[in-house]
Amino acid sequence: MVDIARRVWNHKWKIDPIVRSLIDTDFYKLLMCQSVFRNKPGTRVTFSLINRSKHVPLAELIDEGELREQLDHIRSLSLSRGESTWLRGNTFYGKRQMFRPDFMEWFEQLRLPPYHLERKGDQYELTFEGNWPEVMLWEIPALAVLMELRGRAVLNRMGKFELQVLYARAMTRVWEKIEALREVEDLSIADFGTRRRHSYLWQDWCVQAMQEGLGTAFTGTSNCKIAMNRELEAIGTNAHELPMVYAALADNDEDLAQAPYDVLSDWHEEHDGNLRIILPDTFGTKGFLDKAPDWLAGWTGIRIDSGDPATAAQIAIDWWRARGEDPAQKRIIFSDGLDVDKIRSLHSKFAGRTNVSFGWGTLLTNDFRMLVPEDRLAPFSLVCKAVEANGAPTVKLSDNPNKAMGPAQEIGRYKRVFGVGEQVAEDVIV
Amino acid sequence: MVDIARRVWNHKWKIDPIVRSLIDTDFYKLLMCQSVFRNKPGTRVTFSLINRSKHVPLAELIDEGELREQLDHIRSLSLSRGESTWLRGNTFYGKRQMFRPDFMEWFEQLRLPPYHLERKGDQYELTFEGNWPEVMLWEIPALAVLMELRGRAVLNRMGKFELQVLYARAMTRVWEKIEALREVEDLSIADFGTRRRHSYLWQDWCVQAMQEGLGTAFTGTSNCKIAMNRELEAIGTNAHELPMVYAALADNDEDLAQAPYDVLSDWHEEHDGNLRIILPDTFGTKGFLDKAPDWLAGWTGIRIDSGDPATAAQIAIDWWRARGEDPAQKRIIFSDGLDVDKIRSLHSKFAGRTNVSFGWGTLLTNDFRMLVPEDRLAPFSLVCKAVEANGAPTVKLSDNPNKAMGPAQEIGRYKRVFGVGEQVAEDVIV
Repeated sequence: MVDIARRVWNHKWKIDPIVRSLIDTDFYKLLMCQSVFRNKPGTRVTFSLINRSKHVPLAELIDEGELREQLDHIRSLSLSRGESTWLRGNTFYGKRQMFRPDFMEWFEQLRLPPYHLERKGDQYELTFEGNWPEVMLWEIPALAVLMELRGRAVLNRMGKFELQVLYARAMTRVWEKIEALREVEDLSIADFGTRRRHSYLWQDWCVQAMQEGLGTAFTGTSNCKIAMNRELEAIGTNAHELPMVYAALADNDEDLAQAPYDVLSDWHEEHDGNLRIILPDTFGTKGFLDKAPDWLAGWTGIRIDSGDPATAAQIAIDWWRARGEDPAQKRIIFSDGLDVDKIRSLHSKFAGRTNVSFGWGTLLTNDFRMLVPEDRLAPFSLVCKAVEANGAPTVKLSDNPNKAMGPAQEIGRYKRVFGVGEQVAEDVIV
Repeated sequence: MVDIARRVWNHKWKIDPIVRSLIDTDFYKLLMCQSVFRNKPGTRVTFSLINRSKHVPLAELIDEGELREQLDHIRSLSLSRGESTWLRGNTFYGKRQMFRPDFMEWFEQLRLPPYHLERKGDQYELTFEGNWPEVMLWEIPALAVLMELRGRAVLNRMGKFELQVLYARAMTRVWEKIEALREVEDLSIADFGTRRRHSYLWQDWCVQAMQEGLGTAFTGTSNCKIAMNRELEAIGTNAHELPMVYAALADNDEDLAQAPYDVLSDWHEEHDGNLRIILPDTFGTKGFLDKAPDWLAGWTGIRIDSGDPATAAQIAIDWWRARGEDPAQKRIIFSDGLDVDKIRSLHSKFAGRTNVSFGWGTLLTNDFRMLVPEDRLAPFSLVCKAVEANGAPTVKLSDNPNKAMGPAQEIGRYKRVFGVGEQVAEDVIV
């Protein structure tokens, strides 16, 4: 059992790397990386940090030297022997040798490519350019570094016992959430909180608390390193990154309209069962499902990551019915801005009608809201996204216009191509 | 910084002694011990455990073997070199060589005398017989062992993270008390919580939290071992034990009436300044002060340990005035059943009129109320008292009849001799 407060205290006089392994990342990143490595190996991409919470002045809070130190440390990491053995030999989603030998050989040699860091006012511009399979692996560690350094800036000023009580309060809060979730029958929930976690040690603590507190209702973690260390299932499928880059690579509107289905067609070849999960909202859920080919209705489930989740789930259920599928045999995974109340309410609405799972992110691994003055440890909305592919800008529409990104003109074109009309804006909390 | 939950976890598979030093005891015990060693060396006494909370079935909760193991361990302890150096060389209450060489030589050779343990129904009978200076040193460790073993019986059934969250909750509670006390101007408060603490490690944590959270408002701890380790003032003066035994040794009513003043006369010879604190309630505060000799009014202060504290404090102030003393130059120490609200209210009533201090006991070091089902970690009222001296029973009247002890007939005699009339009964919480 780690004494987290002591470790944080230790940060004050010596470096404790924030990211300590190349697999301290989300499992779906590795699945997508292998897919890209096979299907789009020559693609050049640019990823960029985007702080959607402008009120958090990252460049004022975080020392540039410390930031560089952490990013440089990540560039020094390579896959360890034990990590490689685990990736090669472990069963993921019931399958052995999920990662093919050619991919593993490449991954074993990998070091992350250079980064570009520049201060712009009170924010940092942080970008990564290069081959897609390499650059994409920066996303999660870059976010984790920024989140944790911002936290450390606040923690550095606190006393030893003040720190311990801070963690005592945060632990109590997590445990009370777990106690509340224990009352939910047939719950199925995983940790998706790597990218915006308070810290590595804290995520590890939360995961273990979920293990003890929820038993089998806790299905695993998206974090590979923690899954390996704690002998848990590594959880995750795919993300917006794939359709966004595939779409940017399209030469014309017709190819653009087809791009999201191409992604899933590539995925279909590679994966089956619980890995066949549709993420339908990149360019609007409704239009995506309406125009989807029939083979996609045969997939196992859908992940709901933006917009009103109950509405989106209902759209999915209706869509399955319309395509002659039985929703009771399907799975809906909710993963957007979850906390206990939302989990309970979605579970009570949809459990029984379909299989329901939850991917619980920021408010599991970073709920430090209101625990320090001025709420300076509250999580905020930081993302690291592909913004360009082979020179073309990427676009995301999402079911929530507040989560949309890309040049305005391109957003217009995408809306037209994908038939997206009025959308309801929802606050992006985390 | 100790990870308390991990240590408690460790208890499950190996012994971690509850009392780890002969000076893991209250400072006033050592002062009184030296006084007894000098003034009443030949006295034979019997001390006995008394569980005033009959609803706590100690013998059902605590394994007799484990209890013997802990008590035997205490009998194996002797003063370490470092402890002896500290007692001989440290400044206590501004005075060097508080402990005389002859006393130290005796103490360095001391091992605690045998104990007598027998199960009686769902309670234990635990008694200690022998020379007063030796037997009296059993009181605090015996109480601490019983309190902690009872706690362990509950903790043993808890999961690892459940334990960590239990401590997280308890830490948060203590810290919130400290935060509340930080608002009290010119506060002066010490830890008096050794005897009924949740555990040694927990008391040590609470003391350190008080240090960090209250700064100079925290004046020290009654626990010698912790005072030594944390470089704090050791705090304490004298207790009911002295007048109770002196009174039992009296041959007739006249000597009995004089006994409490004989105690303080012996004390007067030995100590001055802040160690001249009257504990007036053993046989009723009012009568004690009315009949007190004038030299006692010259003492520095009074400790209020039973009855309604505001009433008793007012009696003391009035008494000083009647004897021509200025209450503003005096000190009142409150030490009975304190928690934040009572501390705040007594402070606001008396600060400015006199010097006010607080000796905060059980609800500092053992406030685990309502933290586990059926409140099985709540502190309870356990004492270990001198019940006999040279064959005669001891008596305590107190200002709260619920704290009275001794044979009924003797209580009657004492009430008559000390002129105690109607008393107001108050619940004894801890």
